[in-house]
Amino acid sequence: MTSSLHASAEMPLLTEAEFLAGFYAIGEERYHHKHPFHLLMHEGKLTRCQLQAWALNRYYYQSRIPIKDAAILARSEDPVFRLAWRKRILDHDGDGTGPGGIEKWLCLVEATGLPRDLALRSAGILPATRYAVQAYVEFVSTRSHLEAVASSLTELFSKKLITLRMDRLRQHYPWLSSGLDYFTGRLRQAPEDSEFALAWVVKHAHTRTEQDLAHAALRAKCDILWAQLDALYFAYVNPGWPPPGAFQPAKES
Amino acid sequence: MTSSLHASAEMPLLTEAEFLAGFYAIGEERYHHKHPFHLLMHEGKLTRCQLQAWALNRYYYQSRIPIKDAAILARSEDPVFRLAWRKRILDHDGDGTGPGGIEKWLCLVEATGLPRDLALRSAGILPATRYAVQAYVEFVSTRSHLEAVASSLTELFSKKLITLRMDRLRQHYPWLSSGLDYFTGRLRQAPEDSEFALAWVVKHAHTRTEQDLAHAALRAKCDILWAQLDALYFAYVNPGWPPPGAFQPAKES
Repeated sequence: MTSSLHASAEMPLLTEAEFLAGFYAIGEERYHHKHPFHLLMHEGKLTRCQLQAWALNRYYYQSRIPIKDAAILARSEDPVFRLAWRKRILDHDGDGTGPGGIEKWLCLVEATGLPRDLALRSAGILPATRYAVQAYVEFVSTRSHLEAVASSLTELFSKKLITLRMDRLRQHYPWLSSGLDYFTGRLRQAPEDSEFALAWVVKHAHTRTEQDLAHAALRAKCDILWAQLDALYFAYVNPGWPPPGAFQPAKES
Repeated sequence: MTSSLHASAEMPLLTEAEFLAGFYAIGEERYHHKHPFHLLMHEGKLTRCQLQAWALNRYYYQSRIPIKDAAILARSEDPVFRLAWRKRILDHDGDGTGPGGIEKWLCLVEATGLPRDLALRSAGILPATRYAVQAYVEFVSTRSHLEAVASSLTELFSKKLITLRMDRLRQHYPWLSSGLDYFTGRLRQAPEDSEFALAWVVKHAHTRTEQDLAHAALRAKCDILWAQLDALYFAYVNPGWPPPGAFQPAKES
């Protein structure tokens, strides 16, 4: 990594089209739409217990999104940036009247048949989930503002995945249908957010090194999402070994 | 976790014997001597490539040990504590004349047939390794001094594991024998270190809540070690899916 970034300092600036194409190529290669856990989900091959484990663990990620966004907010001296970014916290925490994304994810946890309290206490989540999510908060808190914003660009790819997921969840797991409001909201929010973030990154990546760091930030974020599904697959699909202390699926399925 | 700690504030102080027994019970249940990756290693069932992946990923952990210990050192206002703890940094970084633990682990990496440069650059390590190790450094940097010291107590159990491992590595993988100096050193160092740390924790855990936090810290550290082996097993044993960008085993074994 270091040596390639040193080398890149002497390389020519990417054109805007090349810079943008780089993000899409990374998404195609590394975004978690290709992860075997998602493939099983979309084929209807996950059990209720496996979907419970997914909803429970992913809740921890969801619960840290506003903390991650507040850390990014705290790094900006530009009120215009902060105004735009503040929307993300509102989307997840709600406006005090309607439910935000976190509340909606709790409804998804309940739709799987688990009590919301389990998610609220992070009870039984995989340590690997915790470490990956902490790494995300750490990344946006300690890397450059540009890298922090660029790491959000997985949202460029989420609309397509969520559209497919909603369709397949309704088809294969109809008992889960009451819990899909989170995804409905994200179909509108994610493209709004990624459009702003992408334009901001294009405007603020002034050197080839910065362009490469922005691409590396998206790669790092893809790794964080991928690692969460690896851990779920290992613990609950194959070989199916939850670590000591983690959520144990009921015997029924 | 939170609710059990609240409840424990009203519970009686553990006797020293009960407090000590708690650490040993946690080790028996959660220490990574029981992890299936280690069981395969000790049965001689790992391929050279799987041992390469282990040595490479574990190097990242080793390389962060002195950083972790320096973070603990930085938290103490007691020169006697710092003098005792400083030994750990010396053990890993060396004294400038003989090799320290990190250099010895690089020899182990080379004995597996990988270039040391790969380890030094952290090239191809699993993101999950990075996250777990970062979580360890974060833990000792942000939790109480007592919890930071207690998290080192996995060393209570390492002598027995290392003794077994050296025996089995020599038996099943004789081509690795030139790389075992790290473990020889740890046979002496780990008991010295854990003896000091355990006495210190016993002396400084004044309340039941502190006793419970010390036990929880050891559990948290066991989780960190376990998660690293889960990730190795998933990527390189079963199902054997290294994530995008990670070390890919050669085809030969």
